[in-house]
Amino acid sequence: MSDEPIGKRRWSFAGGFVPVESTGPEPEMVSHEKLAIVNAGDEMATVELTLHYENGRVAGPYTLTTAPQRVRHVRVNDLIEPYAPPLGRAYSGVLESTAPVVVQVTRQDTRQSENATMGTGAYAEST
Amino acid sequence: MSDEPIGKRRWSFAGGFVPVESTGPEPEMVSHEKLAIVNAGDEMATVELTLHYENGRVAGPYTLTTAPQRVRHVRVNDLIEPYAPPLGRAYSGVLESTAPVVVQVTRQDTRQSENATMGTGAYAEST
Amino acid sequence: MSDEPIGKRRWSFAGGFVPVESTGPEPEMVSHEKLAIVNAGDEMATVELTLHYENGRVAGPYTLTTAPQRVRHVRVNDLIEPYAPPLGRAYSGVLESTAPVVVQVTRQDTRQSENATMGTGAYAEST
Amino acid sequence: MSDEPIGKRRWSFAGGFVPVESTGPEPEMVSHEKLAIVNAGDEMATVELTLHYENGRVAGPYTLTTAPQRVRHVRVNDLIEPYAPPLGRAYSGVLESTAPVVVQVTRQDTRQSENATMGTGAYAEST
Repeated sequence: MSDEPIGKRRWSFAGGFVPVESTGPEPEMVSHEKLAIVNAGDEMATVELTLHYENGRVAGPYTLTTAPQRVRHVRVNDLIEPYAPPLGRAYSGVLESTAPVVVQVTRQDTRQSENATMGTGAYAEST
Repeated sequence: MSDEPIGKRRWSFAGGFVPVESTGPEPEMVSHEKLAIVNAGDEMATVELTLHYENGRVAGPYTLTTAPQRVRHVRVNDLIEPYAPPLGRAYSGVLESTAPVVVQVTRQDTRQSENATMGTGAYAEST
Repeated sequence: MSDEPIGKRRWSFAGGFVPVESTGPEPEMVSHEKLAIVNAGDEMATVELTLHYENGRVAGPYTLTTAPQRVRHVRVNDLIEPYAPPLGRAYSGVLESTAPVVVQVTRQDTRQSENATMGTGAYAEST
Repeated sequence: MSDEPIGKRRWSFAGGFVPVESTGPEPEMVSHEKLAIVNAGDEMATVELTLHYENGRVAGPYTLTTAPQRVRHVRVNDLIEPYAPPLGRAYSGVLESTAPVVVQVTRQDTRQSENATMGTGAYAEST
């Protein structure tokens, strides 16, 4: 079995959207969109996330350092440095990492008291 | 980190279906299927979308120009040029772009008042 | 833009399961698992689907001919030739096609009157 | 058609989470996260699953032997050897197999009596 860490350095997801409204107990049932970044290698991964919006606005980059042998989960709602991204708007994301990582996006939408969960594996640049 | 834009020029999704019925407040809870196209590069991307149906009908191409550094969200329900595609029928889509893009398909199905959301990353041609 | 049809000749999905129970009006709200196969090329695609089960049983192959420039949707519940596959059991599928196709799997689970919909893009062999 | 088995030897998924609470009849409606591993080849596949957590804990490896021509479904809740992994915490997984397999992750979340189902195809290392 290979000793190289699994993953890629560039990822993107296209269908981002954080609903503003929620139902159910906080915080676990608040509508949100979450990025999961796994670093299965032995080096620190410095991941820069840039968000693109429909009106041409670009937010970020948000620096998401992920330690070796760890998964890091980040709610887009919780990003504040350098500034909070706008919510309730469609966006996409591009991630550039200094080490191979695997990225997944999960949305929890509780606007209509039904907890719709959506998961996608994001897009990994193969070159 | 690379200066080349992330993505591919050819995408396809197979399981398209826009439910005709909905429950909940309009317009945000109307059943729909949405394409998200992100252009993370510096060139305009001209994307042509062609839809295929079970009965052999082919609709489009629909031209979806996406500006540099932007995401564009398109509801299949809202396509009207050159003509509106049929709803309530299964279809697939092929996208051809002049510049690399990342595509995601999201379906919101509110027929039974439960807001099922489904997301897939579509298929990116690797060659 | 390329004249070659988009897609691959080998696909697989791992998490198959057709719930036996349903709620809501028939036939559109019956629990099912659906394969969508798009053939965006100009040649007929003969697709052979083989199902694998946990107990070592292998079902099929089911021949799913897909005409050029068409999408074909097949409910696993509706397969009868050469024999109906067992329902209510976990299974996986492998598809081998004579021409490039794109495959997506969608599950509609209406056991608890909530219409959970799940979509995945399946796995395309890149070699 | 090729005689080589479809799949890859290395897989990863990033957004793992097993909800602790459930609603609905047991066992089929208990919240869980399931791995489906299909071995479409003729050789036994020995799959080692390692889980990574946000606090730096690493669990496993869990050995998931999958017989030829079979699918194996494993609930993360049911892993006990060498020890049960923690529930109610975010985690990621890396799988290393001795033979090509296809992996899919499915989550069933019944905390709010609505049975949200989420499926992703996981990430297959292409090299």
